[in-house]
Amino acid sequence: MKIVEMRIVPVAIADPPLRSAFGLHAPYALRTIVQLKTDDGLTGLGETFGGSIPLGDLEAARPLVLGQDPYRLTRLEEAIVGDPVAARNADRPWEGRLTVPAQTFAAIEVACYDIIGKATGRPVADLLGGRFRDQVPFCAYLFYKHAGIGGSDGLAHASSAARERDDYLAREALSPEGIVRQAQDFVRLFGFKSIKLKGGVLEPAQEAATIHALREAFGTDIPLRLDPNGFWSVKTSVNVGHELAGALEYLEDPTSGKVAMAEVARQVPMPLATNMCTTTWADIPETVARGSIQILLTDLHLWGGLAATVRLAHLCRVFGWGVSMHSNSHLGISLMAMAHVAAAIPNLTYACDTHYPWQAEEVIAGGKRQFTDGALRIDDTPGLGVELDDAALEQLHAQYLAAGLSKRDDVAEMQKIQPGWSPVYW
Amino acid sequence: MKIVEMRIVPVAIADPPLRSAFGLHAPYALRTIVQLKTDDGLTGLGETFGGSIPLGDLEAARPLVLGQDPYRLTRLEEAIVGDPVAARNADRPWEGRLTVPAQTFAAIEVACYDIIGKATGRPVADLLGGRFRDQVPFCAYLFYKHAGIGGSDGLAHASSAARERDDYLAREALSPEGIVRQAQDFVRLFGFKSIKLKGGVLEPAQEAATIHALREAFGTDIPLRLDPNGFWSVKTSVNVGHELAGALEYLEDPTSGKVAMAEVARQVPMPLATNMCTTTWADIPETVARGSIQILLTDLHLWGGLAATVRLAHLCRVFGWGVSMHSNSHLGISLMAMAHVAAAIPNLTYACDTHYPWQAEEVIAGGKRQFTDGALRIDDTPGLGVELDDAALEQLHAQYLAAGLSKRDDVAEMQKIQPGWSPVYW
Repeated sequence: MKIVEMRIVPVAIADPPLRSAFGLHAPYALRTIVQLKTDDGLTGLGETFGGSIPLGDLEAARPLVLGQDPYRLTRLEEAIVGDPVAARNADRPWEGRLTVPAQTFAAIEVACYDIIGKATGRPVADLLGGRFRDQVPFCAYLFYKHAGIGGSDGLAHASSAARERDDYLAREALSPEGIVRQAQDFVRLFGFKSIKLKGGVLEPAQEAATIHALREAFGTDIPLRLDPNGFWSVKTSVNVGHELAGALEYLEDPTSGKVAMAEVARQVPMPLATNMCTTTWADIPETVARGSIQILLTDLHLWGGLAATVRLAHLCRVFGWGVSMHSNSHLGISLMAMAHVAAAIPNLTYACDTHYPWQAEEVIAGGKRQFTDGALRIDDTPGLGVELDDAALEQLHAQYLAAGLSKRDDVAEMQKIQPGWSPVYW
Repeated sequence: MKIVEMRIVPVAIADPPLRSAFGLHAPYALRTIVQLKTDDGLTGLGETFGGSIPLGDLEAARPLVLGQDPYRLTRLEEAIVGDPVAARNADRPWEGRLTVPAQTFAAIEVACYDIIGKATGRPVADLLGGRFRDQVPFCAYLFYKHAGIGGSDGLAHASSAARERDDYLAREALSPEGIVRQAQDFVRLFGFKSIKLKGGVLEPAQEAATIHALREAFGTDIPLRLDPNGFWSVKTSVNVGHELAGALEYLEDPTSGKVAMAEVARQVPMPLATNMCTTTWADIPETVARGSIQILLTDLHLWGGLAATVRLAHLCRVFGWGVSMHSNSHLGISLMAMAHVAAAIPNLTYACDTHYPWQAEEVIAGGKRQFTDGALRIDDTPGLGVELDDAALEQLHAQYLAAGLSKRDDVAEMQKIQPGWSPVYW
């Protein structure tokens, strides 16, 4: 079996005006769809970050992918990523051309596993050691947001029924009350059983008040998380950590860097999680040595694929860390890749993050996947269990070309509505 | 696909009177053969340690294995091994019955991968992320030994031609000259390109002299290793380490325990390797923290299987450790399982150990596998690429019953020829 075709399609999807410490989400989020075809007629799908850098890297990797056997991933991983801890492998002449080698390999690897799944009649989870669970839990991912649904034309692709149902997409949420209402929508519509709030946006005291309001609204049945994206000082982190004692299952990246995280970890009553101070294999030894974290948010896109995520989760277990899962704005291919690998990780100690409810548009046939009781079911469908909707892909690609965006820039977007704005370190 | 039959057959194989720090090998080495059959008629093979403990554990695991899908290994691993770092999972009632859960799971997992390989038409290496190399390098594993070939009747099962060729099997080797001659046989017959000497047997100065004699005989083309099995003090280790500066690619387990190993590691000029101070996942954090080693000898049997070995090799990379592979007396099923996983590990930085040339008997059809240029080739044969020789299995099982051994006991064996002998710590 050989890969004979590699299609790389950049797309843009409507994204509401969500706030983060970095600013404001643009009207479109960018993704890249990878489609591999084999000489025996199988097709595999992958999805990764969008914009010019992932696109350029995937194009650069194309000659390494064409002609390869989808099962023979180790050689491809070595060729693209090499030793993920060593300094850049300067002796491999073409490697210097890649900006994000692990991300690039991940998108290709997911498509290869999709192919293997179809070739063997097995869901991808069963190719990663076997699914441990059939139901993969996700969490409600709440954002402070401005009014509006993103995109340029009121989401022509979303049905009016969906717009009606998902009015959390349009509604402003910049207060504790607004966030509680958003959370109620998420819990009612999707059945999520845990809640994460993206923080680092308002004054820390207001964000703490939002957590208290959520706690009041949902009681202790639904665990809460807060993620200020590293924008708090050690002092602020410790103060808010104490203020929220007993209210959070974990505090994610209150501050920046392994040293400061370790300092906060020693002083706050809840575990610290990260997808910022530890995002590559090279970060692991220092993170271990300093004791910077208690929970790692895995991400198959960032860490180099599905198999790498299984290895990472096992490493977390060895060092006594909990395992959660990070998310960016994404479509159904990434959603299912996340779900399959999460199904295969026995020590998935926390429900996975997902931005998925914030994206009204889809690129997969049958439209958006539905959460039931906050979870996605892994059944026996071969591969990832998704197929492309060619017309939707075409439309979202046209949207990419029309949007004229080449990378995510939340600061620039925020400055459009608040000239001179810059990120605030609390 | 469901496992409908699990056959567990203990065997004994002739083993020459090899010396180690623990004493003397008995005339027979014990192994256990696992054979799984599925409802669609596929058969998978596994092999592990022998004697009553592995046998009892495999029997205890049987109810968990029957009825399972060979792809769904994560659930089985969780049921048998659980969290490999946490204290024994007392809440899983049956688990306490297992003495060696990781070993038990490994034998079953290998058989499942053999089945998956046959179901998909793929060699096992390609189910572990894909083979990185087609040729898996092994090293010459030299032993001080007494004259004799082991077994009870002069190896009835080995042909006279084999006996003629393999006279290293019969010859005494208790001096530098004897070991050099043994090494010459191994290099000539099998083409090995690196050499390991099992030490901890003679006085350290004599073992150092043996290394110098090997160096003299083979020059710098063939890297040398010495493994005193942890029977040297820190002082002896440091002294011999300096004495052998430049002569060893690594020194394996000169002394015992993570603390002493770390002390030696700081003082000797060559890297330290282990398969003794770090043999379980629970050993990893302290090994990292202390800096006890620079090279880990993986072992699929000890660490919980093929996939676990891939995870372990990756962890080694993350912490900058080299990767080698440990061996015990074994048959062709273990040999091929070792070769397949070694093929899938990109950072196999050292040729694998193997006792295989010391075993004249076999349980696989076609007789013993041959090394070419010191390596085994992984080709496209589905699964492990070995089948049982039913008559040989029967014979080696009868030999197990007749031998009356239930565990390895090198001390007792040594005392038979040297009453009152006990291990010497140098």
